[in-house]
Amino acid sequence: MALKGSQVAEHADAESCWGKAYDVTEFLPDHPGGQGVILKYAGRDATRAFDPVHPPDTLGKYLDASKHLGPVDMATVAAEAGEDDPDEAERRERLARRPLLSQCYNLFDFEAVARRVMKRAAWAYYSSAADDEMTMRENHGALHRVWFRPRVLVDVEKVDFSTTMLGAKCSAPFYVTATALGKLGHPEGEVVLTRAARSHDVIQMIPTLASCSFDDIVDARRGGQVQWLQLYVNKDRDVTRRIVRHAEARGCRGLFITVDAPQLGRREKDMRSKFTDGGSHVQAGQDTDTSQGAARAISSFIDPSLSWADVPWFRSITAMPIVLKGVQRVEDVLRAVDAGVQGVVLSNHGGRQLDFARSGIEVLAETMPVLRERGLDRGFDVFVDGGFRRASDILKALCLGATGVGIGRPFLYAMSAYGQDGVERAMQLLKDEMEMNMRLIGCASVGDLHPGLVDARGLFVHSNPTPVDALSSTVYDPLVVPPQRPKAAKL
Amino acid sequence: MALKGSQVAEHADAESCWGKAYDVTEFLPDHPGGQGVILKYAGRDATRAFDPVHPPDTLGKYLDASKHLGPVDMATVAAEAGEDDPDEAERRERLARRPLLSQCYNLFDFEAVARRVMKRAAWAYYSSAADDEMTMRENHGALHRVWFRPRVLVDVEKVDFSTTMLGAKCSAPFYVTATALGKLGHPEGEVVLTRAARSHDVIQMIPTLASCSFDDIVDARRGGQVQWLQLYVNKDRDVTRRIVRHAEARGCRGLFITVDAPQLGRREKDMRSKFTDGGSHVQAGQDTDTSQGAARAISSFIDPSLSWADVPWFRSITAMPIVLKGVQRVEDVLRAVDAGVQGVVLSNHGGRQLDFARSGIEVLAETMPVLRERGLDRGFDVFVDGGFRRASDILKALCLGATGVGIGRPFLYAMSAYGQDGVERAMQLLKDEMEMNMRLIGCASVGDLHPGLVDARGLFVHSNPTPVDALSSTVYDPLVVPPQRPKAAKL
Amino acid sequence: MALKGSQVAEHADAESCWGKAYDVTEFLPDHPGGQGVILKYAGRDATRAFDPVHPPDTLGKYLDASKHLGPVDMATVAAEAGEDDPDEAERRERLARRPLLSQCYNLFDFEAVARRVMKRAAWAYYSSAADDEMTMRENHGALHRVWFRPRVLVDVEKVDFSTTMLGAKCSAPFYVTATALGKLGHPEGEVVLTRAARSHDVIQMIPTLASCSFDDIVDARRGGQVQWLQLYVNKDRDVTRRIVRHAEARGCRGLFITVDAPQLGRREKDMRSKFTDGGSHVQAGQDTDTSQGAARAISSFIDPSLSWADVPWFRSITAMPIVLKGVQRVEDVLRAVDAGVQGVVLSNHGGRQLDFARSGIEVLAETMPVLRERGLDRGFDVFVDGGFRRASDILKALCLGATGVGIGRPFLYAMSAYGQDGVERAMQLLKDEMEMNMRLIGCASVGDLHPGLVDARGLFVHSNPTPVDALSSTVYDPLVVPPQRPKAAKL
Amino acid sequence: MALKGSQVAEHADAESCWGKAYDVTEFLPDHPGGQGVILKYAGRDATRAFDPVHPPDTLGKYLDASKHLGPVDMATVAAEAGEDDPDEAERRERLARRPLLSQCYNLFDFEAVARRVMKRAAWAYYSSAADDEMTMRENHGALHRVWFRPRVLVDVEKVDFSTTMLGAKCSAPFYVTATALGKLGHPEGEVVLTRAARSHDVIQMIPTLASCSFDDIVDARRGGQVQWLQLYVNKDRDVTRRIVRHAEARGCRGLFITVDAPQLGRREKDMRSKFTDGGSHVQAGQDTDTSQGAARAISSFIDPSLSWADVPWFRSITAMPIVLKGVQRVEDVLRAVDAGVQGVVLSNHGGRQLDFARSGIEVLAETMPVLRERGLDRGFDVFVDGGFRRASDILKALCLGATGVGIGRPFLYAMSAYGQDGVERAMQLLKDEMEMNMRLIGCASVGDLHPGLVDARGLFVHSNPTPVDALSSTVYDPLVVPPQRPKAAKL
Repeated sequence: MALKGSQVAEHADAESCWGKAYDVTEFLPDHPGGQGVILKYAGRDATRAFDPVHPPDTLGKYLDASKHLGPVDMATVAAEAGEDDPDEAERRERLARRPLLSQCYNLFDFEAVARRVMKRAAWAYYSSAADDEMTMRENHGALHRVWFRPRVLVDVEKVDFSTTMLGAKCSAPFYVTATALGKLGHPEGEVVLTRAARSHDVIQMIPTLASCSFDDIVDARRGGQVQWLQLYVNKDRDVTRRIVRHAEARGCRGLFITVDAPQLGRREKDMRSKFTDGGSHVQAGQDTDTSQGAARAISSFIDPSLSWADVPWFRSITAMPIVLKGVQRVEDVLRAVDAGVQGVVLSNHGGRQLDFARSGIEVLAETMPVLRERGLDRGFDVFVDGGFRRASDILKALCLGATGVGIGRPFLYAMSAYGQDGVERAMQLLKDEMEMNMRLIGCASVGDLHPGLVDARGLFVHSNPTPVDALSSTVYDPLVVPPQRPKAAKL
Repeated sequence: MALKGSQVAEHADAESCWGKAYDVTEFLPDHPGGQGVILKYAGRDATRAFDPVHPPDTLGKYLDASKHLGPVDMATVAAEAGEDDPDEAERRERLARRPLLSQCYNLFDFEAVARRVMKRAAWAYYSSAADDEMTMRENHGALHRVWFRPRVLVDVEKVDFSTTMLGAKCSAPFYVTATALGKLGHPEGEVVLTRAARSHDVIQMIPTLASCSFDDIVDARRGGQVQWLQLYVNKDRDVTRRIVRHAEARGCRGLFITVDAPQLGRREKDMRSKFTDGGSHVQAGQDTDTSQGAARAISSFIDPSLSWADVPWFRSITAMPIVLKGVQRVEDVLRAVDAGVQGVVLSNHGGRQLDFARSGIEVLAETMPVLRERGLDRGFDVFVDGGFRRASDILKALCLGATGVGIGRPFLYAMSAYGQDGVERAMQLLKDEMEMNMRLIGCASVGDLHPGLVDARGLFVHSNPTPVDALSSTVYDPLVVPPQRPKAAKL
Repeated sequence: MALKGSQVAEHADAESCWGKAYDVTEFLPDHPGGQGVILKYAGRDATRAFDPVHPPDTLGKYLDASKHLGPVDMATVAAEAGEDDPDEAERRERLARRPLLSQCYNLFDFEAVARRVMKRAAWAYYSSAADDEMTMRENHGALHRVWFRPRVLVDVEKVDFSTTMLGAKCSAPFYVTATALGKLGHPEGEVVLTRAARSHDVIQMIPTLASCSFDDIVDARRGGQVQWLQLYVNKDRDVTRRIVRHAEARGCRGLFITVDAPQLGRREKDMRSKFTDGGSHVQAGQDTDTSQGAARAISSFIDPSLSWADVPWFRSITAMPIVLKGVQRVEDVLRAVDAGVQGVVLSNHGGRQLDFARSGIEVLAETMPVLRERGLDRGFDVFVDGGFRRASDILKALCLGATGVGIGRPFLYAMSAYGQDGVERAMQLLKDEMEMNMRLIGCASVGDLHPGLVDARGLFVHSNPTPVDALSSTVYDPLVVPPQRPKAAKL
Repeated sequence: MALKGSQVAEHADAESCWGKAYDVTEFLPDHPGGQGVILKYAGRDATRAFDPVHPPDTLGKYLDASKHLGPVDMATVAAEAGEDDPDEAERRERLARRPLLSQCYNLFDFEAVARRVMKRAAWAYYSSAADDEMTMRENHGALHRVWFRPRVLVDVEKVDFSTTMLGAKCSAPFYVTATALGKLGHPEGEVVLTRAARSHDVIQMIPTLASCSFDDIVDARRGGQVQWLQLYVNKDRDVTRRIVRHAEARGCRGLFITVDAPQLGRREKDMRSKFTDGGSHVQAGQDTDTSQGAARAISSFIDPSLSWADVPWFRSITAMPIVLKGVQRVEDVLRAVDAGVQGVVLSNHGGRQLDFARSGIEVLAETMPVLRERGLDRGFDVFVDGGFRRASDILKALCLGATGVGIGRPFLYAMSAYGQDGVERAMQLLKDEMEMNMRLIGCASVGDLHPGLVDARGLFVHSNPTPVDALSSTVYDPLVVPPQRPKAAKL
């Protein structure tokens, strides 16, 4: 028998909370997003808020069958009003007047459009990073400390930038890396990325925290299209084994174990965007439960005790190549080689975890000379991500020795702004830039790229200028260009 | 017999000046704040101005009993009008609309709120620093030249960041350092910090120049709460001995002798905020008495002749561990070790003394390798303060070898903006960040932190860019993102 | 018989396209500017758009005679309306009020005026550069990392900065380098530069992509005036041989083969300025033909297979000195020496090709010590261009070992703003600065310049500061200068 | 017989030009300020424009008696109208409301006030520098790359910063360096500086290009006050000998020969401020006579052929200590030692001559280790100037080995804003800062200062950041502090 909305509404507190006819009471402290958001919607229809954040199979997967109270008669449920964000009308106006897709000439352009047309909370979730967001910005900035030493007079009539990652051929040396909550940006979510990746013969890494279900994303695959699985390791290793084996069975060709997130980072831009004055802040000094709650919760979904000792077990449960995602120092790369995995992703999680973690490109430049010196650079794939926006950025990484480069947010922004067309154009722009830049540095194929084509000496320098001299700069009277002449007086 | 206000008013000049029925005439040239401020209030009720700046026991402590003329019949005194600051109404409006405490996500947020809601002069006193305030800003900026080299795949399920300072256990590797004039920010003054420190099991250093009396601050202590004494050394060593012995008797567990202030620094922001056109500026060229006066005055309150030769005497009068606060070069750290003290604070006084003094973090990075090389890093506590705002800042110092980190202004700002709740939340935020960041750099306890976890090579670089090229930057036409399309004309 | 406009208009599509009575159908995919622009004007009078971009002999030169359909009766052609740019009236107003020429004191001033008075698309074409325009700006910025170590007490009453390039005497160590499409800036195009160069006895390099025909530019030469030819190498070597031999026959005294442009760079500022909503963007995701088309097209006009193996052939077809323009690394300079050419231009094409290519001045500083060490610096001319705006910039290059410095955009801007007078004044200003600066560094002739007169140690440093700390800089309250006093109230 | 104005007016052209009854026709091409300004006033009363720029004895000194046509009957002369600068009323308003002198806390404050209250052309003359004004700003900026390594626990009760320069005692390690045209800033001109210097026992260097006559400035001297002479060497060595011997006879105790100005620099800010549309710009392209004229003119007033060979002659004509002012590289310092002079001023003329000359402080840091190594640092005075604004700046130079520091513009600004009172306060502020900073770096006397007290490793680094990434910085959404809450709606 379908439950009535009023029955559900009776259970809207932390003692007994039903959501969509599930009893999530025991689950509350384990919710990775904190219990606040569940309580907010408890006893009401949470579909609208739930959807972009969770795949359809989430509750069935993580809640015991005993917690399923049965279907609810939706007609009896108090409708959750659309958020009456006063800015929403303006956003729709901006959306209507967004630039034509053909006016987007580079990956930044998609970000600019996405910032204008996305809902504020979605933008905040995608764009935010840890603490002062230094690492997020350093990621792109570090690439500016690498300059080219191009060769001239090389026959570059035919340029081929296809390459091989984990043994799979792909059309370009970049891949779609895993990012969470695709439905925040587009109602169809990650499958949009799958389709675009297919059009361009680009590899996609499927995220654990996708909005679409894993199977939906795999179902969207066509032909020989290559997909990998990104994995957050659950404390319950049975859950983990089930996920990994299912992915392998469904044809995933690489397992990327995230190792830089024993706890999810604090992202203040995101927190600030979510803040609403719920009236519960009377005892403001006590109001730090949230973060403690989240910290505890994570310990079941993402196992903070994961360690090098677990690596052999992973090798035992799958034949997929294993790559450690989020390695950040050469010592750990060497350890990964010793542990027998097939590769690493030098990544700081897009700056979303540890602020002041170094950029992937810097760790790459630290790593490759050591690997080369020890003869370990062959047969071990070193990927890198974070801050890559131009084909020239990607080429710098390849010159320094990377196998491939992950692109995350830019494709999300392109998807959020223009859907699948947007993602495809973003990929095409990267390819156009890639072809041109390969020619301009004098390389006809990826195999021609080598460290002598870049000057990366400045990469390791972390400097900042002495503080601005407020008085001195106030009193300085800057030079000006010649002024226009005044309008001639009429006679 | 109570004096009449009119009797007091007769003595309002530098020849004979009574304040609140004290004869401070002889004291005038010794007043650390300059004689101008005393003369301003002479013959009137100075309570309102006196209170935030001096503990209640000040006059009794520093003026001979013979100067006490007796109580004044307050009804006969011309009331000092509240400052009719035209901005005060706006400030109250800002105060009423300050953000909720739960909207503060980091230590900067408290500073932002404090700046809006504090009285202008109080803000100026707290926020100002020496000369061009370069060192104050360099303090935080220098931390940005240190980047992490985090370890992954370490079991960090349980993270413990408690530690030991001068033999005392505490819950976190930071302490409340000494800052003056707490009542400028909060009517209750330093005891607010004491109570918050107690809630969080954090050590407090009691300032010589507190607004609350020393005993009030000690009385606010509970249980095993640890307090230290910060000491400005008076020229009269009997006064100094009395203060030190009293502190020890009252249970203080560390003596921090300030060595970076033989003269108090010039803080122009503070000076400018205090400026009022008193009509006495007719002979403007002669108007430099103020600073000369202050310089002379200091010589009795803070002894500029204090030297290494005095250290043995301090060791003779107390059993408390002795720490030299304000050491700024490795040579002096080595000398401190030789002098047999228990530690140093590498500090530049929050940038309030010598501008272009280097940051504490830089001096730390200069110091620790030398101490380690000579085997002197064990059993000698090296503290550091100045510019620390994030747990990641603190962790950088600990990685480089610091025992603990002093936090000053941020807690004052939190107190000024939100009282004890504010300070507690500030501490909790630091702890939340600390737990997260310990996990993310792969360390389960303070003992795991070591120099290999940071890249501090850039720390010693003091550079600034070539001057801005005004003409070149004027004529450059920067790239833009795609524009919105014009509104479609109505049909 | 003259064709009628209506007959021409019938062929306005990609299947059959006549322009001005040429059948350009087969030529469409080869058009270096893409086929879109031809189709836009097909069947209409394209003269107004065609003129600034192509010399009058273009169609005869590149289209087979069979494609010439005969003259069109212009009276029967639909006139292409003047672009009704809404900003055009404002531009004319700005033009009318531009500063007097005598108010221009340096080369930036011309750029400032040109930016105000040029048509938007022309400005965009001249001022744009590749990708993020980093290299374009780095070109000038790099010069700011070189500082002088001047000598004093040297007799500099007479200063002589004339010099010799490729064996030809000239009055100053700079030359007019090749830049395309001069008629975008001035209706007479490149001959304006020729006349100004003659006035100042400065060498001019004639561009392949000039708006004026090659012969017109040569015809404008007077007396012993020296001209060089800049060459894009056509895939059809017969065309190339014809062009080179013609230039030699007409008296050109140097052949500069462009080697940094196997494909023309993407210049987004230019693309954005050209964008018009043509209504054809329905399938926006497919809209990347443009760039693919351009890429293919270039392969006939600028041969991307050009390589070191072609150099001997060039030496076989001409007696002119051969210089490779666009060399960007010392290894290739050495190879050029081995290949027997007479010099190189260290250039990145004004930042218009590969973004993050290093500046010419940096490559110069990398190159000359190696040449000197091997004794190869005599009899081999090393030119440099990119970002030079001041005589001091030029002197830095000469101190480091350059033979001469190419100036491109500044003369275009001077021409666009003030015609021949503008270019002459620009040259005179450079000479005035040159005389003064030679005196001030203590050198009476170009032969006295040497590396010891500059400190170029910073030149190789590519750094950027740690990201801006948004929160910290928001909460910092900067120092201010003393405020004005309020207006005294009236009595 | 007095000439009538109309007679004078008849000679107002370059063929025959009388000014104030002088025939300056032959002199025209030699006028250091160019002939334009003379012609502008020819035949009219030039007193108002002439006065601030020339001492009263100028015409008698430089024009042969034969050119003196006699006094003019001023009543018959067309009065030169006061400049009807539309901004003048606003300037007077700003002057009336300038801050009180006691609100100036540092040397920048005087500059801020001067900028507001000075006439535009006067401000432009004082504040301008060569070309892009890079060196002028680098001068101060370079000091920011030197940081202190202060000593603590040193007895600094008594601080003595008096010192000795060229054998003369003075109260502080700075002096008033020579600057031209004092009457532009104050109607009394340089004697104001003389009086202030006397009050503070500070040495003054008298400029060749003073507005006051040399004798007036010497006459303003009192008691043992020390003055030096700054000398531009005239091509006519008899004139030079006469000037030097006169200075020695009048008691000058040092001869500072300017060696960095074989030609006066181009100062575009000054040129732009002077520009008036005189209607003579019809043939704008030919309008470069000005600079050529100036260049030629200089050759008589400032001898560009002055060289090391002239030094012995100077030693032969005077017993004053000789110092070369404007030396800019260690090689030339060594040569000065060899030449037997008593010292050098490491100076770039306040950035007014060669742009991209290095700062004095940098040349000092390059020089002193070499002098010390060769034992040449004793008995040879090394002065430095350029960009010094704080006592801490001066102390950095002294630590690095300077004998004394010249201060120029700041005293001019103080004089322009507040007259003698201003200059005295400026000097007192420097002394107050000096006393404090000596204490804070732990030095009781100038003799205690040494290189170990500073970290100057960054001084030689000339870097600039990679260009601003316009797109990336546009799309980045910066973190914000918590917003104020909205005003509560009324009930």
